[in-house]
Amino acid sequence: MGKKKDGFVNQITKRSEDFSKWYTELIRRAELADYSPVKGIMVIRPYGYEIWEHIKDNLDIKFKETGHKNAYFPLLIPESFLKKEAEHVEGFAPEVAWVTHGGDNELEERLAIRPTSEAIICHMYSKWITSWRDLPVLINQWANVLRWEKVTRPFLRTTEFLWQEGHTVHATSDEAMEETLKMLDIYKNFCEEYLAIPVISGLKSEKERFAGAVKTYCIEALMPDGKALQAGTSHFLGQNFSKAFNIRFENKEQELEYGWQTSWGVSTRLIGALIMLHGDDSGLIIPPKVAPYQGVIIPISRGNWKETVLPKANEIFENLKAQGFRVQLDDSDVATPGWKFSEWEMRGVPVRIEIGPKDIEKNQVVLVNRINREKSFVSIDELNEKFAELLDKIQNMLFEKAKNFREENTSEAETFEELSSIIETKRGLVTTGWCGSETCETAVKDKNATTIRAIIENQEGKHKICVVCGKESKHTVLFAKSY
Amino acid sequence: MGKKKDGFVNQITKRSEDFSKWYTELIRRAELADYSPVKGIMVIRPYGYEIWEHIKDNLDIKFKETGHKNAYFPLLIPESFLKKEAEHVEGFAPEVAWVTHGGDNELEERLAIRPTSEAIICHMYSKWITSWRDLPVLINQWANVLRWEKVTRPFLRTTEFLWQEGHTVHATSDEAMEETLKMLDIYKNFCEEYLAIPVISGLKSEKERFAGAVKTYCIEALMPDGKALQAGTSHFLGQNFSKAFNIRFENKEQELEYGWQTSWGVSTRLIGALIMLHGDDSGLIIPPKVAPYQGVIIPISRGNWKETVLPKANEIFENLKAQGFRVQLDDSDVATPGWKFSEWEMRGVPVRIEIGPKDIEKNQVVLVNRINREKSFVSIDELNEKFAELLDKIQNMLFEKAKNFREENTSEAETFEELSSIIETKRGLVTTGWCGSETCETAVKDKNATTIRAIIENQEGKHKICVVCGKESKHTVLFAKSY
Repeated sequence: MGKKKDGFVNQITKRSEDFSKWYTELIRRAELADYSPVKGIMVIRPYGYEIWEHIKDNLDIKFKETGHKNAYFPLLIPESFLKKEAEHVEGFAPEVAWVTHGGDNELEERLAIRPTSEAIICHMYSKWITSWRDLPVLINQWANVLRWEKVTRPFLRTTEFLWQEGHTVHATSDEAMEETLKMLDIYKNFCEEYLAIPVISGLKSEKERFAGAVKTYCIEALMPDGKALQAGTSHFLGQNFSKAFNIRFENKEQELEYGWQTSWGVSTRLIGALIMLHGDDSGLIIPPKVAPYQGVIIPISRGNWKETVLPKANEIFENLKAQGFRVQLDDSDVATPGWKFSEWEMRGVPVRIEIGPKDIEKNQVVLVNRINREKSFVSIDELNEKFAELLDKIQNMLFEKAKNFREENTSEAETFEELSSIIETKRGLVTTGWCGSETCETAVKDKNATTIRAIIENQEGKHKICVVCGKESKHTVLFAKSY
Repeated sequence: MGKKKDGFVNQITKRSEDFSKWYTELIRRAELADYSPVKGIMVIRPYGYEIWEHIKDNLDIKFKETGHKNAYFPLLIPESFLKKEAEHVEGFAPEVAWVTHGGDNELEERLAIRPTSEAIICHMYSKWITSWRDLPVLINQWANVLRWEKVTRPFLRTTEFLWQEGHTVHATSDEAMEETLKMLDIYKNFCEEYLAIPVISGLKSEKERFAGAVKTYCIEALMPDGKALQAGTSHFLGQNFSKAFNIRFENKEQELEYGWQTSWGVSTRLIGALIMLHGDDSGLIIPPKVAPYQGVIIPISRGNWKETVLPKANEIFENLKAQGFRVQLDDSDVATPGWKFSEWEMRGVPVRIEIGPKDIEKNQVVLVNRINREKSFVSIDELNEKFAELLDKIQNMLFEKAKNFREENTSEAETFEELSSIIETKRGLVTTGWCGSETCETAVKDKNATTIRAIIENQEGKHKICVVCGKESKHTVLFAKSY
C-alpha cells in the first residue's frame, strides 16, 4: 500500500508456474501474514487474522452447541509434568521451547512453553474430578502453542501457531469414543461447509498417531500440488493420561475408576489450506463464508464520478452493510479501476461490484464472480438477493471444483510398483490395501517419502491384498505425500 | 461439585470478616479460577472464562466500531529488540521470562516472552509503514502476556494474564493524542456500563507512567477495602518508539517523518475488580451484562415435582433462552432447593427464578434479586419483560451502590498530616494539591505507602497548595493505596 496506483498490481509468481513460490509470495503480497524477526514465527496481519476470526467464531458456536465450554490453562508447563506420560514427552520434548529464567533468576525447574496442553490440563482435571457426577468434562481452549520446528512455512507449519484444543473426560470408553468421532465430524462438516475444503476422515496408523493417544482420527485434504494436508485431528486417549495423571472418579457403584479421555484440535493451518486450494494465478480466492470482505464495490471513475457515481456507490455500500454483508468500497482516487480490479482479485474478494455512469442510468450494477470473471447485470432493487445468491454459488463452486480435483487425483494401486509409479508421476491420493505391519508402511515411506494418511472405510471387494507384501489386507488405506 | 447436596453450601469466609481471604476463597469455591502448578499462574475455569468472553466480545465490538482491526504478533521477542527503547527495557527486563533453549539446542540470542508487545509490533510497523497513505494504523491484539511477578493474586496480578493491547500509529501528535483519549473513554464507558464499576480517568505522574510512554492515562476504581485498582491504561507514546524502531513515513510534503504512536490495554484484572466490588457475604454478584447466567430457574422439588413442576420449569427455560437470555435450569435431584439457592447465590447469578406447585396454579414465578433478595411475583405471560427489567435494575443498582461507596470514601486533604491520617484510618481516595515534584510524591509514598493514582481535572478554587511542601499546587491529584 502507499505505492503509486496508476499501473498494475505488482506481479507475483503465477501459481501455474511455481506453486510453492506463489504461495509464500501471495501471503505477503495480500498482507495475510509476514515474517517476524524470530525464525519460523510469523505475524498474522489483520487481513489474515480476520479469516481466523470467522473460523474461530463459527467453530466456537458448534463447540458450544455440543455442550463444550471454553477455559484458559497456563502457557508454561513444568518439565516434570510433561514427563508423566512416557510416549507424550518422547514425542514432544525435541520440539519444546524452554524457559529457564524469570527476570534475573534461574528457575529451579525449567518450564516448557506448551506444545499442546494435555500435561497441564490433565493435572488440573485430577484435582477437579472426584465423582461420576462431575463427568463428562467438556472443555475447549483457544490458545497459542509453540513447537520448535526445523522447516517452517507460513500458516502450514510455524513455530508458534494459534489453535483450539478440546480436552474431555468421560465415564466410559464408549462415550469417549463417541466424543472423538463427534468432533471429527464437526471438523469435517466445518471444512466442507465453511472453507469449501473437501476432506477425507479416517484413522491414523500407529506410527502416525498422536504421542500418548490410543487412536488418532484425522481429516485429510488434497492440495493442488498433489500432497495431502492434515487439516485436523481428534484423539481417543483411552486411560493413558488419566493413569499418568491420576484422574479418577467414583462411579455409580462407588468404585474408583480412571476417566476416559479425548483431545482434538484445528489450527491456523486451515488458512494455509484454503489459500493453496482455492487460489489461482491472479491471487487468492477466499470462500465467502470466511472472507473478510465478501464483496468490493468499485466505482468507475470517469469524468465527475465523485459527484455522480460515488454517492450511489456509497448508498449501495451502506445498504449491503446494513443487511449484514461484509463489504468494502474502494473510493480511492489515486488508483484506476483497472488497478483496483486486479488488487482486489489478488486479495481474493469473491464478488466485485462495479458501478459506472451507464449503470446508474439503468439502475443496475455489475457483479463479477472472482472464480471465472463471469459478469451479471443486476437491478439495484434486487441487489441483496442476487448478491447473496452469487455468494452461495461461489461457495459451492469452490467446493465442487476442489472435490472434482480430488476425484481426478485419487488413484487405486494393487502393487508396490503401481503405487510408486503413481506417486512419482501423478501424485495425489492412492487407495490400496495394507496388511497392518509397520514394516510394509516403512517400506513405502523409505522408497517414496509417502505415508499412510488415513485408514478409511473398507471398500467392498477391493484391495484384498497388502500393496507391499501381498499378504492379506487388513485395512484400506490412503497413501500420499504430505505437508 | 459431586459432593452431597442435601445440606448447605460449604461456608467460605465472610467478606465482612476478612476481605482478602473471602476474595481468594470465593474465586476457587465459585470455580472462577484455580491455582496451577506454576507459581503465580492461574487456570481460568469455564465459569470465570465466560465472564472474560463477554468482556472481550463487547469491547471488541467497540474497538471495531472505532476502526480497529485485530492481528496477532509473536509471543517471543528477541532480547535485542526489547533493548531498543531504553526506558522500556529498564521497566520490563526485571520481570521477563526468558526462553534460552529450543529443543536440545541453546539459542544464540535469548528470547523474551512478551510482557507487552511494543518492541515486536514497532519492528513490524517499521516495515509496513512508508507513506502518509498507510496511516493511521489501528491494530489491536487479544493475547496472553507474562510478567514474572513476586507477589500474585488471582485475576489482580498473575504471572501470566490475558489482555488486549492496541497499538496505533498516526501522522500527527494531535491525532495520536485524540486516539489515546478516545480509547480511555471507551474503557471508562465500558467499565461503567457493562461491569458497573465507576472509574475515575486521569493522567499518571511521570513516576507512575508506562516505561517508554510520554503520557500514561488511566482509569482507577475504588475497591471495598479502600484501595484503588488501576483498571486500564492508555498511553501516548509520542515518537519514543518510532525513533527507536525507525517507523518513518513520507508526509504529504514528501518529507520523512517519525510516526506518532499510542498503546492501550485492559486485562483479566477487570474480573478481579468486579468480584471485589460487587460481591457480598453470600458470594459473588456478577453484573447481568457479563454474567455467564443472568438467571437460574429453580423448581421447588416437593412431591411429584418432576411430573408437575419440572415440565413448566423447562418450558420457561426454553422460552427465556429463545429470547436470548443466558439462563440455567437447576433440575438436579440430589440437592434441596435451599442448597441450590445458596449455591447459585454464591455463584453470583443476578436473578433466581423460583417455581413451585402453587406458582403454577397461579401461572406465576418468583423472581429474586440477588443483591437484596427482594422477591417479585410475576405472571408467566409477562416474564420476558419483567426479567429484562429486573436485569436492568440490578445492573443499575450495582453501579449506584459502587458509586455511592466511592463518594463516601473520597476525602479532601490540605496538609500532609491530614492526608496521612485519612490514609491510616479511613483509607479511600484523597484529593489534594501537588506541586509536581517527585520529592513530594516520594515523601507520601515513603510515609504512607500511598501513590498518586491520577492527576485529575482541576477543581475550581480548591487545592491551591501542594499537600506536602505547601508551595503552589500545579495539579489536583488523587492519592490512594493501591493494588
